Amino acid sequence: MRREVVETRAVPAGGRRPAAARADDPFRRRVVIEGVSPEVDGGRFPAKATLGEDLVVEADIFTDGTDAIGAVLRFRKAGEEQWHETRMEPLDNDRWRGTFPIEELAAYRFSLEAWIDDFLTWRRDLGRRQEAGQDLTLEYQVGARIIEEAAGRASGKTETALLTAAARLSGRLRGRELWRLALDEHLAALMSAHPDRTRSTLYERDLQVRVDPPRAGFGSWYEMFPRSAQAVEDAGRGKDGGAPKGSVRHGTFRDVEARLPYLAVMGFDVLYLPPIHPIGRTRRKGKNNAAEAGAREPGSPWAIGSEEGGHKAVHPQLGTLEEFRSLVGVAREKHGIEVALDLAYQCSPDHPYLREHPEWFRLLPDGNIRHAENPPKKYEDIYPFDFNTPDREGLWLELKSIVDYWIEQGVRIFRVDNPHTKPFAFWEWLIGEVKQSHPEVIFLAEAFTRPKVMYRLAKCGFCQSYTYFAWKNTRAELMEYMTELTQTPVRDFFRPNFWPNTPDIVTEYLQQGGRAAFITRLVLAATLSSNYGIYGPAFELMENRPRERGSEEYLDSEKYEMKRWDTGRADSLREVISSINAARRENSALQTNRGLRFHQVSNEHIVCFSKQTHDARSVVVVAVNLDYRHPQSGWVELPVAGWDIEAGEKYQMHDVLTGARYTWSGSRNFVLLDPAVMPAHVFVPRRQTSSGREFE
Amino acid sequence: MRREVVETRAVPAGGRRPAAARADDPFRRRVVIEGVSPEVDGGRFPAKATLGEDLVVEADIFTDGTDAIGAVLRFRKAGEEQWHETRMEPLDNDRWRGTFPIEELAAYRFSLEAWIDDFLTWRRDLGRRQEAGQDLTLEYQVGARIIEEAAGRASGKTETALLTAAARLSGRLRGRELWRLALDEHLAALMSAHPDRTRSTLYERDLQVRVDPPRAGFGSWYEMFPRSAQAVEDAGRGKDGGAPKGSVRHGTFRDVEARLPYLAVMGFDVLYLPPIHPIGRTRRKGKNNAAEAGAREPGSPWAIGSEEGGHKAVHPQLGTLEEFRSLVGVAREKHGIEVALDLAYQCSPDHPYLREHPEWFRLLPDGNIRHAENPPKKYEDIYPFDFNTPDREGLWLELKSIVDYWIEQGVRIFRVDNPHTKPFAFWEWLIGEVKQSHPEVIFLAEAFTRPKVMYRLAKCGFCQSYTYFAWKNTRAELMEYMTELTQTPVRDFFRPNFWPNTPDIVTEYLQQGGRAAFITRLVLAATLSSNYGIYGPAFELMENRPRERGSEEYLDSEKYEMKRWDTGRADSLREVISSINAARRENSALQTNRGLRFHQVSNEHIVCFSKQTHDARSVVVVAVNLDYRHPQSGWVELPVAGWDIEAGEKYQMHDVLTGARYTWSGSRNFVLLDPAVMPAHVFVPRRQTSSGREFE
Repeated sequence: MRREVVETRAVPAGGRRPAAARADDPFRRRVVIEGVSPEVDGGRFPAKATLGEDLVVEADIFTDGTDAIGAVLRFRKAGEEQWHETRMEPLDNDRWRGTFPIEELAAYRFSLEAWIDDFLTWRRDLGRRQEAGQDLTLEYQVGARIIEEAAGRASGKTETALLTAAARLSGRLRGRELWRLALDEHLAALMSAHPDRTRSTLYERDLQVRVDPPRAGFGSWYEMFPRSAQAVEDAGRGKDGGAPKGSVRHGTFRDVEARLPYLAVMGFDVLYLPPIHPIGRTRRKGKNNAAEAGAREPGSPWAIGSEEGGHKAVHPQLGTLEEFRSLVGVAREKHGIEVALDLAYQCSPDHPYLREHPEWFRLLPDGNIRHAENPPKKYEDIYPFDFNTPDREGLWLELKSIVDYWIEQGVRIFRVDNPHTKPFAFWEWLIGEVKQSHPEVIFLAEAFTRPKVMYRLAKCGFCQSYTYFAWKNTRAELMEYMTELTQTPVRDFFRPNFWPNTPDIVTEYLQQGGRAAFITRLVLAATLSSNYGIYGPAFELMENRPRERGSEEYLDSEKYEMKRWDTGRADSLREVISSINAARRENSALQTNRGLRFHQVSNEHIVCFSKQTHDARSVVVVAVNLDYRHPQSGWVELPVAGWDIEAGEKYQMHDVLTGARYTWSGSRNFVLLDPAVMPAHVFVPRRQTSSGREFE
Repeated sequence: MRREVVETRAVPAGGRRPAAARADDPFRRRVVIEGVSPEVDGGRFPAKATLGEDLVVEADIFTDGTDAIGAVLRFRKAGEEQWHETRMEPLDNDRWRGTFPIEELAAYRFSLEAWIDDFLTWRRDLGRRQEAGQDLTLEYQVGARIIEEAAGRASGKTETALLTAAARLSGRLRGRELWRLALDEHLAALMSAHPDRTRSTLYERDLQVRVDPPRAGFGSWYEMFPRSAQAVEDAGRGKDGGAPKGSVRHGTFRDVEARLPYLAVMGFDVLYLPPIHPIGRTRRKGKNNAAEAGAREPGSPWAIGSEEGGHKAVHPQLGTLEEFRSLVGVAREKHGIEVALDLAYQCSPDHPYLREHPEWFRLLPDGNIRHAENPPKKYEDIYPFDFNTPDREGLWLELKSIVDYWIEQGVRIFRVDNPHTKPFAFWEWLIGEVKQSHPEVIFLAEAFTRPKVMYRLAKCGFCQSYTYFAWKNTRAELMEYMTELTQTPVRDFFRPNFWPNTPDIVTEYLQQGGRAAFITRLVLAATLSSNYGIYGPAFELMENRPRERGSEEYLDSEKYEMKRWDTGRADSLREVISSINAARRENSALQTNRGLRFHQVSNEHIVCFSKQTHDARSVVVVAVNLDYRHPQSGWVELPVAGWDIEAGEKYQMHDVLTGARYTWSGSRNFVLLDPAVMPAHVFVPRRQTSSGREFE
């Protein structure tokens, strides 16, 4: 619900009252403000918000005794002098809430101020005394004095009005007239505009908010390898049209550009490409991660750098820089798709940096550079940067210049490879610097690591983060994890991006479950999380063969070879994906994680949840059969009262996956989900009018 | 478990290293320290500890990548210059723990420091490489360099030893010898003593700990009204021996002193007295809270002040100041019982303060003083202080002088009446000031109010607090509340004191349940909480008649009259109370709330829990039938593996309430609790030796 800014009071930055009034004894400030949210690590890190949303601020505000309180939320943009204020409203249990609109892609500051409101106290107590039949004579006089004091804080007509009210309350009016005057709404409004704030409590710190563009809060991502982007019918022909049928020619930026309509029809917003830079030849990995590549094998895109260039160059087989810029432009202008690059801070043995800056790498005692490893695992085709280098400043500046370079080429989104192997301070600095000059840039952290490390990266500035989603398969696991992500303070700094598969991960669930499992995981990712992504075409073509039993690596992984993807295959999941992405675009409830709730289902194989916007104007109900083998059915309990549906009232559930419509009644309804047909419902509830016609 | 201080390093207060080393680039500090506990509101308030315990400090400590970490906990007493250090140990999930002993009744400060440990990293990785059969030649040289650098931080024999080790590692020893040298424990110890801390992370703040005496953490309290302290056989005789049999003479401090052996036998540590000051006559309350008292009615002890004096005077019918001091001294010296006074900051209409300091009270427009109220409720016999008085400083100093005065008379414990109607800032100042000069003083907050207010008072310094215990009756309620109190950060600043009854509260459960309910509530209070109290003799005599149906007030409450208590009555609960208090004294597990866990019982009417000390040397298992009407039975599941008991092994459960001994076996055992006999077990598990004899 969008709160209007009720009072915009332009007060000097810092918002302090004149020295004389503030010289008042600090021990007189009785109101307590604590438990402020969003507040990340006591204010050490900014909270996150997205452009266009209202930031919801809450706090515990209370005082000794029973006096009533007034409270405001103060806010300003980081560069602004003036603070703005908006009133906060009490919830229950001493919790207060206020909101302010995030209208610019800039950093914001906010704080809170609260005070004892004698008038509200008096008026409330007057009501209680009156109900108990007590004599109010003296109380009216007490009120008159409070109003008189307020008049001293006002001027002009307001001052006059207040003095008049005070005089009347002290006068000889009849009880009924005094009572009406005391409860007069206009008087209350005037008093509300002139509270005594000389002994207010100001929250002890200003808190920061960092604003990201809307795409950071909501987006459907598609990852593909340009190397395999050629249309399958071209796959057998070389550039000259005559290569042998068996080989696959290397895909190009132009091929990717030709793929854009396919992605746009499926409804994706972001196209994420693995690294597009030249690939090293020394110790290049071969098919299925073989230690050495054959002459024609392309190697891993993450082994960046060769004599053809490093992180600021494009792989010559992908095309030219101009072709890349064209891809970015066409994607954005024509299809509304943002191209995201992979930022992988590491080098192949052939990267120019090794010649130019050997000091940026760790040396072994024999003078060789230490390759990447996590003992005993060795990654011989990769050299990591040594962040302990004496030339720390030079290294950091160069690494930032890579980001700056690609921003100049039009890129606005970076998916960052393994950020947890680089210092937190580096990311905090890098992202902070980039956001200063380019606040619209988005950084996604791909850190599959320990939870506190993942959360720290998010605090340091990563706009989105990969998660443990792929391994949350049972209802209990999903509920527990979503609770952690959406009901704890994690939600103030960590934006999840749910990927059912990645080039490194095809889960056992997908390996075992086939089509039903793919659809199940797609629906879960795309409805539980406002940000999600798939690695395709592996996903829509349901590729699920592991490299070996018990592994999550793909067999014949695209990381090491060009693939032939027959995207036109009849059984492709492209239509389901289209339906889901359309549902996400058409139902704003799916564009945030705030309104997520789980619902009771009598069958533990079925998970049921809903999302709704704050005002409940958009509601989506999802039921998913987690058992990819067997049909499952059960009774679902929905909190329909909150959606203005009466017990026993009929309404329609429109399934946007299949187009089917079901008539439901009241809170308890039956679902049957056959994985062989469609393992999930994605319902938009629709009311029925008295004429029988539907409306939203 | 008491951790020894492994390293006591005397470093200057503030603990900063010399400027030269610290001039090092702050961006090089890779280790993160967050989530420190205990930390109350970001360090705004001190955490609590009791003298003699070890303070357990935990934090999340981690870095990017996989390097190993070293961490120390730094601590010092508030007035000390020197910091001491003790090593922290890793738990799991990046959580680290350290402890330091609280050896003085003084404020402490602590902080944390952590760094990358290259040697530990090298040694760990060496192990992993060796297990994978990798060649270690270069790795030994890497280790040699690390050791050589450490030698530069050492001197004398240590330096020599390290240089020697480094040289040997770089030399031509055989693999087996190099391996043994690399893993040498002595080398590891030397390296551990000389870590490179030039790029360590120092936690961003020093945290405070306020220390209270042991009695703040563990005590059994007994509240009684001196006015009724005369022995029942005396009740009918006046001081001169000749008063009519029907009336009760006013009890005195001497009578209370005569009552001490009774309390000592029951095993109480604290004797808490309602206010002992003169009681006002104007609008004195009569029997059962009648608006006006008859001529001989004593009034409420909380209506403090008359022409006979105020908060620094004693009620003449109780005796003299000397008699009070004698009571305090005899209680402490002879019986080990501490006398606690009631600190009630309010005045009767007759209190001297009203004449001396009318400006400390709120005036109505007609010039009269506003009595206490919570509209529409009126308390006409009480005038509250107006903390908004212009003479705030004078008021605060006078109120503190009351505490100082009674401290001079020997009092060390104050139970504070309704602190939530006085400003938080006042309590924070008062308690802080008193603790500076008298760190052994204990303040108990009697604030039956909203939870956040109760917690704020504890943060502000109250050493103990009344709780919602009286209204937690079902198993679910008890478990939920105990979890809140013992498993959340609340435990770092809030010490519960559980009272099954007070002069204001006789619960429906006690009204309905009679003897069984009284025993149940006694056992729950006395075993769930290390601090508990009862209002007697009402409790042991099972007085449970309410003033009217649906009320929690006592009928003929002792607040308004002298009572005849026949403490020798045969059915008194004094023996059960003795047994429970003895169990508390003899089993250290019951002297803390830290080791509390709930256990599965197949019958929801039975709640089962255990407490144990950190080293599990003291274990107590409690099973309580919450149904005061019917016998209940069921199967209890205990985690006996943690107590070194094997599956199927027999052991004894010694019930300290009845003396009965039961032979139990393994984790799953049967209990039957008949409320008509004894509704609870309080078990001390005892092993059986192979000879069949028991030992602890």
